Amino acid sequence: MESLIALMTDFGVADIYVGVMKGVMLGIHPQARFIDITHAIQPQNVRQAAFALANAYRYFPAGTIFLVVVDPGVGSARRPIIARVGDFTFVAPDNGVLSYALRDADDVQIYEATNEGLRLSQVSSTFHGRDVFAPAAAHLANGVAPDTFGPPVSDPVLLPAPEFNISGRHVVGEVVHIDHFGNVVTSIGYLRWVTPERLTLIPRIGDDSATHRPIPAPSASVTAGQAQIAGICHNYSDAPRGDLLAMVGSNGYLEIAVNQGNAAARLDVSIGDRVEVEIG
Amino acid sequence: MESLIALMTDFGVADIYVGVMKGVMLGIHPQARFIDITHAIQPQNVRQAAFALANAYRYFPAGTIFLVVVDPGVGSARRPIIARVGDFTFVAPDNGVLSYALRDADDVQIYEATNEGLRLSQVSSTFHGRDVFAPAAAHLANGVAPDTFGPPVSDPVLLPAPEFNISGRHVVGEVVHIDHFGNVVTSIGYLRWVTPERLTLIPRIGDDSATHRPIPAPSASVTAGQAQIAGICHNYSDAPRGDLLAMVGSNGYLEIAVNQGNAAARLDVSIGDRVEVEIG
Amino acid sequence: MESLIALMTDFGVADIYVGVMKGVMLGIHPQARFIDITHAIQPQNVRQAAFALANAYRYFPAGTIFLVVVDPGVGSARRPIIARVGDFTFVAPDNGVLSYALRDADDVQIYEATNEGLRLSQVSSTFHGRDVFAPAAAHLANGVAPDTFGPPVSDPVLLPAPEFNISGRHVVGEVVHIDHFGNVVTSIGYLRWVTPERLTLIPRIGDDSATHRPIPAPSASVTAGQAQIAGICHNYSDAPRGDLLAMVGSNGYLEIAVNQGNAAARLDVSIGDRVEVEIG
Repeated sequence: MESLIALMTDFGVADIYVGVMKGVMLGIHPQARFIDITHAIQPQNVRQAAFALANAYRYFPAGTIFLVVVDPGVGSARRPIIARVGDFTFVAPDNGVLSYALRDADDVQIYEATNEGLRLSQVSSTFHGRDVFAPAAAHLANGVAPDTFGPPVSDPVLLPAPEFNISGRHVVGEVVHIDHFGNVVTSIGYLRWVTPERLTLIPRIGDDSATHRPIPAPSASVTAGQAQIAGICHNYSDAPRGDLLAMVGSNGYLEIAVNQGNAAARLDVSIGDRVEVEIG
Repeated sequence: MESLIALMTDFGVADIYVGVMKGVMLGIHPQARFIDITHAIQPQNVRQAAFALANAYRYFPAGTIFLVVVDPGVGSARRPIIARVGDFTFVAPDNGVLSYALRDADDVQIYEATNEGLRLSQVSSTFHGRDVFAPAAAHLANGVAPDTFGPPVSDPVLLPAPEFNISGRHVVGEVVHIDHFGNVVTSIGYLRWVTPERLTLIPRIGDDSATHRPIPAPSASVTAGQAQIAGICHNYSDAPRGDLLAMVGSNGYLEIAVNQGNAAARLDVSIGDRVEVEIG
Repeated sequence: MESLIALMTDFGVADIYVGVMKGVMLGIHPQARFIDITHAIQPQNVRQAAFALANAYRYFPAGTIFLVVVDPGVGSARRPIIARVGDFTFVAPDNGVLSYALRDADDVQIYEATNEGLRLSQVSSTFHGRDVFAPAAAHLANGVAPDTFGPPVSDPVLLPAPEFNISGRHVVGEVVHIDHFGNVVTSIGYLRWVTPERLTLIPRIGDDSATHRPIPAPSASVTAGQAQIAGICHNYSDAPRGDLLAMVGSNGYLEIAVNQGNAAARLDVSIGDRVEVEIG
């Protein structure tokens, strides 16, 4: 039985940590296959990881096990948990890192991973990725049922949603991610294009039954840092090369970009900074 | 049927993009195996990717599918294409990124990937890697024939070759890559060692039937940036530790290096800068 | 027959080098599976790689082949070697990079890889990772016996151990690694916690039969750079967020860390710097 384990950590790729976790898993489940989602979450940035995981997990096949280790509380009393949602299973510390992935799920079962027989025989106080979480993922891949790991959890830690408020024609959000290209990704995720000329405010992502309210996109105005951007484009090349633009990115969130350039460097914004949209 | 898919992008490894593409491919072709060639192509640098791909692809086994996504024109009218060359298949935007890999091939078939049934059901305007190119690679791995994707392409975009001119005993080229060690790789690719004391100018790489013209290597002089280097060495340790040297690198191109040091930092050169060789 | 090959290099992940090595190995052994331990060893830093490998290899399953290419002497007379230790096999240049992994092994067989039939047909002078070491790892994965590669080696290059001296209640070591989080890892590896209140000096790691000498940890004092740290903690969260602390890390070495912060940036220390412990 071959199993897919997708990894997300803040470990970076310069140390041996990720490789060692994979070695541990292969010792328990030799047929494991690994996909690295990212190991470049900012150190201890649980919220950034939660946002990245929510955008990534839906694209993986049913049966995927997600091993998510962003764990500022390692060695303290925070619980290791296993969450089963439909055909997906998540292994993570109970610090809110699963909050956004689980947000829209109807049926979630969560268990605390207390069973010492499903850890390495020696558990360090600083590397539970190796000693607790990786073994759990590998045992799950071997077919061990989640409820074998420990008691159910009814009160997982949940993070507040990123700021996102709509008041009349005024929308307020925040920067939630800056990607490798310098694209500035915001929490304004409910604006969806329906035609090149119009975008639509819908109450939540994926809810096709919502009442749409069409907005003429060219009249929107986006403010981030010192910059004000007129209109919302359809793709990068709608703006001249090197110009700032606003658009709806590939995960459905408003992004600020520079056509073939780096918007974050231009705007000097950081994660958490305020972004506003005025719908003219 | 297990298939090998080798990836080259400018996505970096900090974001979820590469992992999501792999998740999408595994959903279509669960037996896919992935090798990352590199995801550190400079953003939108099609030419750098074209050069890297040409140096890498020959080392992969027959049957490998190359998924190459360096795509400054994403969302515009540029065509997604599939190129079949011998036992290799390439999936890429039609922007010249395959130019150098296809340069010496006798028999190339290229098709535009227009078939909407072989994409994700929703195609964003900014992430065709996920929505168009990754599904194409996975369907090819499943055995879908290239001509199922769309009509043949007879006029692919081709990049001009990097500058490389030989005029008598004077050779002019340019910097085409600076590697992780700071080795400065040039476009001067037709100089080949035959013995430790001699190098040979041959008309093209791999053409053993060419007329060789032996040149005494110690009398060659290489100029790059402010530096002038006497002689062409056989390997790094021919120069004292910390000294600049010129040599023929592992892909057959003239390189400027520092023995156990960083030549690019020493020379202050950039991609595109002129390099000259005087054969004394 | 499926084989696991774990890779450690100083090649970085920006160039095609690692991908090309994997392509070469798959051409020889199509069932090879790869785990990247790290490719971020500092260029030519054999000692850092030796330390990282010693901490990593024990976590991999029996039968793993380790391909270790940190090779400042590439192209010179240094020998390529294959070392068999128990169920593990190592392929590396003979420059000491295996020293710490082999240090405690009872029974090591080492062979020089001179057999030209087990290399690529053309061997460059600068990329033996591709032309010599990767083919060797793949042939080993195919079941070729180590002694087929060449003659036995009885005098491998061995690095001196990192500084680590205990004189009465005074312990002197050095910084051997700074990790992605800025944790400063020292060579002081023989201090082991037995209870939260006590730590123990034991003669060597893993030697449970050693005479333990319990030390009250709170009275220990650690000096590194300009900083003096009182006490040795059990885990990161024993110190207030943002405070410096000393603790025993996940591989059994004394580390200096900042709870949810970067100790290396705070202390301004480098690999090789002196660290002292005074047991009060």
